[in-house]
Amino acid sequence: MLYPQPMTRLIHELSKLPGVGPRTAQRLAFHVLTLSDEEVGKLAEALLEAKHKIGFCTICGQLTETSPCATCRDPGRDQTLLCVVEEPKDVIAMEKTRIFKGLYHVLGGAISPLEGIGPEELRLKELLDRLRTGSFEELIIATDPNIEGEATALYLSKILHPLGLRITRLARGLPVGGDLEYIDEITLSKAFEGRTDL
Amino acid sequence: MLYPQPMTRLIHELSKLPGVGPRTAQRLAFHVLTLSDEEVGKLAEALLEAKHKIGFCTICGQLTETSPCATCRDPGRDQTLLCVVEEPKDVIAMEKTRIFKGLYHVLGGAISPLEGIGPEELRLKELLDRLRTGSFEELIIATDPNIEGEATALYLSKILHPLGLRITRLARGLPVGGDLEYIDEITLSKAFEGRTDL
Repeated sequence: MLYPQPMTRLIHELSKLPGVGPRTAQRLAFHVLTLSDEEVGKLAEALLEAKHKIGFCTICGQLTETSPCATCRDPGRDQTLLCVVEEPKDVIAMEKTRIFKGLYHVLGGAISPLEGIGPEELRLKELLDRLRTGSFEELIIATDPNIEGEATALYLSKILHPLGLRITRLARGLPVGGDLEYIDEITLSKAFEGRTDL
Repeated sequence: MLYPQPMTRLIHELSKLPGVGPRTAQRLAFHVLTLSDEEVGKLAEALLEAKHKIGFCTICGQLTETSPCATCRDPGRDQTLLCVVEEPKDVIAMEKTRIFKGLYHVLGGAISPLEGIGPEELRLKELLDRLRTGSFEELIIATDPNIEGEATALYLSKILHPLGLRITRLARGLPVGGDLEYIDEITLSKAFEGRTDL
């Protein structure tokens, strides 16, 4: 005798989630049995609703219930600034700062030969179309500060320079609140290179 | 602009799961969006099905779709042996060994004053009823080898000794495949105490 079939099935489905192994799946499944019918119903419904209602904005590529998304439709956003990020969650991170008031473009990833992701897998055609037809004056490249993000930033700057707009990238340096002795050498050397007058 | 409402809702529901914080919930929610409608449907259905179809065996307390469970109904199991465990998953662990052919009794936990779990929270009345009306000759206490499990085992042996059956417990000793130098002193001292002739 092992688990009843619906339990085995739930463990199997849960273990397909990222970072969830068989042990965690078992723990989650047991937890589900301790919830009320209503709580399980809410979780199941949230899964289905999110999957069915959320799509990508046809302009910027951000997650949205309606396309174009609220940001792309907002006339109050600065139509001359375009910030290029890798993933939808990067837009959320940027918005939380409340600093940036321009528009976004989500690439949908970064160039990574190891994972078989080349430029053609990214939303580059859409980016070029926007830059050609829009009124953008500055393109801010905000890819991740890792190898794939750097490669993507260099590739973008190479293909976009002919368009003649200002291309910038986010500053590299010390993370605020960090402890100098624990900061890696590469970040520290970038912080030296980019030092500013006080 | 933050996430679309269905996404926020899904992240909220996922973060209620044990061991799932806001970051993990976000990662899981993004993963859900990358799945096909069919895959999300299967996960949601598995949640609802497990919750609706699985209950506890009225005899042994194990998870089951039908009560009494398959083990309790199986005439091929040794009706003279009863193994007491804390949780339904302990039954699964025991069954995987294929050594034990008797019946089980799931307590539903262990005595833990710190967590406010006393003997009255466990399935002890059901255990006493089974021992009085059944044909059991030996009771094997297989609670967890930790403080709560030990306390529960001692409590059980105290209240059950008057019934006159043989009461045993699982051996303490070196875990097979372990490395002697990494084994804690308490386990090692238990292994000394319980040493057997070769």
